[in-house]
Amino acid sequence: MSLPATKPVYDRVALIGLGLIASSMFWAIQRAGLAGEVTGYARSETTRDTARRIGLCDRICDSAAEAVEGADLVVLCVPVGAMGQVAAEIAPALKPGATLSDVGSVKRHVIETVSPHVPEGVHFVPSHPLAGTEHSGPESGFAELFQNRWCLLVPVEDTEPSAVMRLRRFWEGMGANVDEMEADHHDLVLAVTSHTPHLIAYTMVGVADDLRRVTDSEVIKYSAAGFRDFTRIAASDPTMWRDIFLTNKTATLEILGRFTEELFALQRAIRTGDGQHLFDYFTRTRAIRRGIIEAGQDTSAPDFGRGAKGKA
Amino acid sequence: MSLPATKPVYDRVALIGLGLIASSMFWAIQRAGLAGEVTGYARSETTRDTARRIGLCDRICDSAAEAVEGADLVVLCVPVGAMGQVAAEIAPALKPGATLSDVGSVKRHVIETVSPHVPEGVHFVPSHPLAGTEHSGPESGFAELFQNRWCLLVPVEDTEPSAVMRLRRFWEGMGANVDEMEADHHDLVLAVTSHTPHLIAYTMVGVADDLRRVTDSEVIKYSAAGFRDFTRIAASDPTMWRDIFLTNKTATLEILGRFTEELFALQRAIRTGDGQHLFDYFTRTRAIRRGIIEAGQDTSAPDFGRGAKGKA
Repeated sequence: MSLPATKPVYDRVALIGLGLIASSMFWAIQRAGLAGEVTGYARSETTRDTARRIGLCDRICDSAAEAVEGADLVVLCVPVGAMGQVAAEIAPALKPGATLSDVGSVKRHVIETVSPHVPEGVHFVPSHPLAGTEHSGPESGFAELFQNRWCLLVPVEDTEPSAVMRLRRFWEGMGANVDEMEADHHDLVLAVTSHTPHLIAYTMVGVADDLRRVTDSEVIKYSAAGFRDFTRIAASDPTMWRDIFLTNKTATLEILGRFTEELFALQRAIRTGDGQHLFDYFTRTRAIRRGIIEAGQDTSAPDFGRGAKGKA
Repeated sequence: MSLPATKPVYDRVALIGLGLIASSMFWAIQRAGLAGEVTGYARSETTRDTARRIGLCDRICDSAAEAVEGADLVVLCVPVGAMGQVAAEIAPALKPGATLSDVGSVKRHVIETVSPHVPEGVHFVPSHPLAGTEHSGPESGFAELFQNRWCLLVPVEDTEPSAVMRLRRFWEGMGANVDEMEADHHDLVLAVTSHTPHLIAYTMVGVADDLRRVTDSEVIKYSAAGFRDFTRIAASDPTMWRDIFLTNKTATLEILGRFTEELFALQRAIRTGDGQHLFDYFTRTRAIRRGIIEAGQDTSAPDFGRGAKGKA
């Protein structure tokens, strides 16, 4: 697992933004020997200092332009709402023939805001690794984050196939499974499997926090499996998630509409005492769980919502 | 951890219903030597056969009345909706001076339906261990389930304090922390920390299953952290959860009302592009998470929604 690949996929890789994803990418790149050199840049001086202190990236630069200079692959790892501005900033420094990519959780918006800045001769290949934890920042990364996770490539029109193939090899080298998907479909799928669930978890934790008759300490002390999982989800980075909802507005609002429709039907079943409706609904949802386990995307080991799996 | 206690807390314990909780209780009782003999009964013959095959309980009986005969502690471990009927069935066979308890997730309803059947001289002490996994059935239990989890005792009026104390020692012997709480407050707290989150998770998984433009295989393949956690929650026992919602109707509907109110406010912020509202909300919910970790009810180890914690 820690053996370097026979030869690097890119001579030089630049990571712009040094949070959970970029820092995990660096450790995964290093582990597999996927790049000759990795440069890094973060807007915050504190983040750059931290990166230098923990040895994140071969070289931390004090400007984005400096970091991308001469890079064969530039990956934007900033919140979705900042992608356009960062692309504008680095565009003049991009090397002809380089590949520009990103790791944003929303793809249509990134394509719309980044594409206008991509110089002639630079290959723009948006991507989205479906991997993460509830932690954020340069110290939260680790080489195994992408292992057996999916990374979706969302090539724009007329992208050079060889640039896509090379990026695919790069992500595979970091342990990911790679698929290609169209941007709007990506945004809809993610609204279902990630964005709406996050919004719902944030909402439920907020409700608990608001409820004055149930004290905060009771909510914390007696947090059972359901709620505890929600608090973990709702501990994710606020800036990243604000940007996701603002930029994947249409799909999120559509899925939210479907969600409230179903929720009201279940609420009505509770109010009218329709046990059959509840039972049938709860039985049906078990099948999806089985599918996820069979697809190797989760284990059937019992979870206590408290990390006891490794100990049990 | 596997050393027996100096002496049993009860000479004979009867477990009625042999699912996740009862089977975990048996292994925990056995591990700590908390009872001289444990009898068990389940309505389904298949379950009784399985229990006999795996050595669950010292003796499996073919009727509930036989199982409770001579027992010093009888614990009802059936779905909340079945408690009253089972109590009626065993009442004539209960030993004078015995303690009757249950492990239901809703307490007001259990008290209302069980109390009328409790014979004079039998101590009724409702309880609720806040522990579980997404698995169910007699083979899903394990001795560590209650370790460091809370068990809430909800004594009814005029309960003999010595009976409550003894049940407390019993649960502590199984590894649980024990608190007492009033029934209605219990039902409200649990509506927040467990019941409503489960309903929401079931709903979201149902929505994903319904959505024809996103195929099931895509939902499964690309299930990211948020949704994957929801599918685990939504894999819980349908009968148990149907009963919980039907019997904790008032509190669940109240919390659902608060939830949709907040959700609509966030939905509106997305629609109007109010990033500040979203950011503030998402920042506030992080504090509760920290509290839960500080209270030792979860770990800060990153979770991937796929049981990788123990491996990382």
